[in-house]
Amino acid sequence: MREMEVIGVIAKPSRENTRNVLETLLPWLRQRTRTILLDKDTAATVQETSTLSRAEVAQEAQLMLVLGGDGTFLSVARVIGDRGTPILGVNLGSLGFLTEITLEDLYPTLEKVLAGDYRVEERLMLSAAIVSAGVESPRQLALNDVVINKGALARIIHLETHINRQYVTTFRADGLIVATPTGSTAYSLSAGGPIVYPTMDALILSPICPHTVTNRPLVVPGDSVLEITLKTPSENVMVTLDGQVGLPIQHEDTLRVQRARTRIRVVQPYRKNYFEILRMKLKWGEGPP
Amino acid sequence: MREMEVIGVIAKPSRENTRNVLETLLPWLRQRTRTILLDKDTAATVQETSTLSRAEVAQEAQLMLVLGGDGTFLSVARVIGDRGTPILGVNLGSLGFLTEITLEDLYPTLEKVLAGDYRVEERLMLSAAIVSAGVESPRQLALNDVVINKGALARIIHLETHINRQYVTTFRADGLIVATPTGSTAYSLSAGGPIVYPTMDALILSPICPHTVTNRPLVVPGDSVLEITLKTPSENVMVTLDGQVGLPIQHEDTLRVQRARTRIRVVQPYRKNYFEILRMKLKWGEGPP
Amino acid sequence: MREMEVIGVIAKPSRENTRNVLETLLPWLRQRTRTILLDKDTAATVQETSTLSRAEVAQEAQLMLVLGGDGTFLSVARVIGDRGTPILGVNLGSLGFLTEITLEDLYPTLEKVLAGDYRVEERLMLSAAIVSAGVESPRQLALNDVVINKGALARIIHLETHINRQYVTTFRADGLIVATPTGSTAYSLSAGGPIVYPTMDALILSPICPHTVTNRPLVVPGDSVLEITLKTPSENVMVTLDGQVGLPIQHEDTLRVQRARTRIRVVQPYRKNYFEILRMKLKWGEGPP
Amino acid sequence: MREMEVIGVIAKPSRENTRNVLETLLPWLRQRTRTILLDKDTAATVQETSTLSRAEVAQEAQLMLVLGGDGTFLSVARVIGDRGTPILGVNLGSLGFLTEITLEDLYPTLEKVLAGDYRVEERLMLSAAIVSAGVESPRQLALNDVVINKGALARIIHLETHINRQYVTTFRADGLIVATPTGSTAYSLSAGGPIVYPTMDALILSPICPHTVTNRPLVVPGDSVLEITLKTPSENVMVTLDGQVGLPIQHEDTLRVQRARTRIRVVQPYRKNYFEILRMKLKWGEGPP
Repeated sequence: MREMEVIGVIAKPSRENTRNVLETLLPWLRQRTRTILLDKDTAATVQETSTLSRAEVAQEAQLMLVLGGDGTFLSVARVIGDRGTPILGVNLGSLGFLTEITLEDLYPTLEKVLAGDYRVEERLMLSAAIVSAGVESPRQLALNDVVINKGALARIIHLETHINRQYVTTFRADGLIVATPTGSTAYSLSAGGPIVYPTMDALILSPICPHTVTNRPLVVPGDSVLEITLKTPSENVMVTLDGQVGLPIQHEDTLRVQRARTRIRVVQPYRKNYFEILRMKLKWGEGPP
Repeated sequence: MREMEVIGVIAKPSRENTRNVLETLLPWLRQRTRTILLDKDTAATVQETSTLSRAEVAQEAQLMLVLGGDGTFLSVARVIGDRGTPILGVNLGSLGFLTEITLEDLYPTLEKVLAGDYRVEERLMLSAAIVSAGVESPRQLALNDVVINKGALARIIHLETHINRQYVTTFRADGLIVATPTGSTAYSLSAGGPIVYPTMDALILSPICPHTVTNRPLVVPGDSVLEITLKTPSENVMVTLDGQVGLPIQHEDTLRVQRARTRIRVVQPYRKNYFEILRMKLKWGEGPP
Repeated sequence: MREMEVIGVIAKPSRENTRNVLETLLPWLRQRTRTILLDKDTAATVQETSTLSRAEVAQEAQLMLVLGGDGTFLSVARVIGDRGTPILGVNLGSLGFLTEITLEDLYPTLEKVLAGDYRVEERLMLSAAIVSAGVESPRQLALNDVVINKGALARIIHLETHINRQYVTTFRADGLIVATPTGSTAYSLSAGGPIVYPTMDALILSPICPHTVTNRPLVVPGDSVLEITLKTPSENVMVTLDGQVGLPIQHEDTLRVQRARTRIRVVQPYRKNYFEILRMKLKWGEGPP
Repeated sequence: MREMEVIGVIAKPSRENTRNVLETLLPWLRQRTRTILLDKDTAATVQETSTLSRAEVAQEAQLMLVLGGDGTFLSVARVIGDRGTPILGVNLGSLGFLTEITLEDLYPTLEKVLAGDYRVEERLMLSAAIVSAGVESPRQLALNDVVINKGALARIIHLETHINRQYVTTFRADGLIVATPTGSTAYSLSAGGPIVYPTMDALILSPICPHTVTNRPLVVPGDSVLEITLKTPSENVMVTLDGQVGLPIQHEDTLRVQRARTRIRVVQPYRKNYFEILRMKLKWGEGPP
């Protein structure tokens, strides 16, 4: 891999130990790399100044270094969008599904990455828009999931669902999750969905508390176009992207979800074993006895 | 059983065929019973006049005859409250779990009931209140379930749960259902809860999309006192009773749920087989081959 | 509670540390109690001699002290049968659902129990028999569950199920579990059954891999009589009691399961919190944050 | 598509109406096609004579016409094996997942197929072998699933599982299902597995009654090599292929399952909608309201 000359660093500001980590990390990085870019919030955390937004950092950087939890990783992934900038997640707390590098592995990992000793794993993202009276909203990205969810008061919503213009069923449920394989271990798992190997080209549809209990999670090809139309005049129905961005959806509006054009490129410093993370996060127990 | 001299009739006004049914039913009943009481809305459906609320009808009647679906039955059950008035549900649409009498069985069933040829099955109800800063709200009743549910935008809420002052766990979930055995085939079933025989003295706790997938539904004795404290400052968290009445709940408020003092007394004209209804509603197939 | 003059000690012989524990425990007990009874196998472990079977020990003892895992506890519970002898389980390995006393708590717990400072918790057991051509086999006991299970080759068996002579359904499944509340956290949980508070008077029916996915676990009153008839001529179908005792069942035979006459009386040295064990065994996390 | 000159017909002999159907179908086919091949059993059903095995029919035919249920289809699919002969399933009873043509559609469908008006849908099959003491058994095919299953008496078996030589976990369960997308609606669904679109290149691992309830179904890429080693000395553990062929597996033997070299080629006379079949078979209800 070619040398990395510009690295963007984005940290979750509110984490208590963020400042400590950055105060050691930034000098270390600056000794080894031509340019280190910080976004405004990250700069402010260490009393530096930056005028760059996260998107501007992602525009310039050859590598995005994310410090935080899976939530921070998800929000940076959506900002990277179609740029294809590789991303490396460092977890400041416990191990995450996305932020697989822990603090103690930070410097050994960075040394390998700066030396070009890493692999890039591509994972699909979702692109979602709401079609209302024939007008489609701007498309937005999600790495884990796009969820349509009833408000706290409504008991059930009706979601008429088509895949590639073929009618599937009208889910009567609390909501419906469209997850990527990456997101299969997040919200979709709580709703009864399967674990899907993260590099697969697949989408997962997991209904939330379906009235018809045979409405089981559905795995469909990655190039499927999903169209989900709200058939009940319920108020406060929302579409959320990665649990972070919310868009209201109205009666007869259609949520359109499909694979995004570009994939997120996740930096992995060595042949990481996905099942190790599963065993740890799902408490399956350790390695072979 | 003693003769029924006062029968209250409450119908779901918006059902299309309600008026047709009432126009035949009311004269039939008036020939056979001293007094028939209608509430305002039911009276208006057949161009009669009444000043009585549903509660006032329930106060006077020796039998409550409910025409509608399970939703109408639930709302009348909550109005009957502690009065112990027996209730008989007639379904104007398809078979319900609660409204087990269909239109074609209506008159044969009523003849038996008026002749005293019936059984009363007692089922527990829930009593719920929200304790906020030490102050307890008025208690409200539910026949199916008391549910605490996040709003459409929040991804997860934390619900610290005690049973009889013993700490159970802090559910991180979309919400939590406290169901009666009667309600075990309603929302709780969609959330993965078991089917509980309706006359049992038990409460069911079913977490909705729990983050910890080992947080399985829990069945506890009917005399348990459940206390569920909202530990996240999420907005729009609601407590709903039978999916019909909603109460907002705030950060650090506690939802207290326990068995209500009085049970609902459901009239059953003959030895009804609960499993027949299960087989039909859950599409298990017909009787023994 | 009256003083305990005769204590029966039954240990799992194959456990490596059984001998070490017994060599300290037996002298300690003999100093404090008039009579200590060992069964043959336990005596042999410490080079002593006994002619007593486990059943004979249970016949004489005022307290049964069981050292081993949940499996040992289950087998002793079935031997105690109708005698009502209180039982105290000590786990020689990790914490069990039934053997709640760990080695480090052993002596403090025994001191309290010998001083009469304990509680007895009663839990229902199952009584099972197979009716073949009108002839009923001898009844056998189970504390966790009675399971009817297909052989490894058959794909599915048909199980016509009645509760109190009412037809429920004909399960087409790998098998059917009838569990006690005590057993609800064992095999039944793996099959999707709910957690049922252990002192409840209830039986749980959990189908194993049902063909009809709406055949959800069913909780019925403790006094229900269950009759399960094998309607397929499959070979190698077995009924197992607590996963330890196996009985073959033939085409058209009926498995009859009901609550046993006597309950098992579990000694609990102090007000033990069931939810603590759940949190630990199901990895729900620790106490309130 | 080129003209079909040789059609193989294989019928399930024991079906009551097989003979009636064949007596009309065979003359009809012989008027329109040069050669109709029957295997021994099918020929005997209509008092004809054939010396051909099913495999020999599959060897010669340009189309395999299967009359029976999904079971017959599965067994013919395994016989076709690597030959790639297209297969068309006609259901003599109710609709099947694989035998999508019902009797009333038989002749219109055949006319279209003979006129070349059809599509071939390719679906992956599994190839399985048991490795015992370093020796690999002959590979066998399965279209739905390869299942490793405990005997009726054993409570649990330990299955050490690797995917592409990476350790996954050691399932402690009743067994483990490796299903194709085609088989995702069969046994795997009963064990809690997801519905996977049938043309996808994926394998599904569904543990049966896992002791660790977080051992959720897993979807992995179609080119994965699965190795499952039996780590318990249980007797009567069996590997079954499509629930029809059984192979014993011993302690420390390894079941190796991977995608077969050739795919089964399913004839579909018109753009069939998979979701229609799902809605019908899983009782989701009819088309859009």
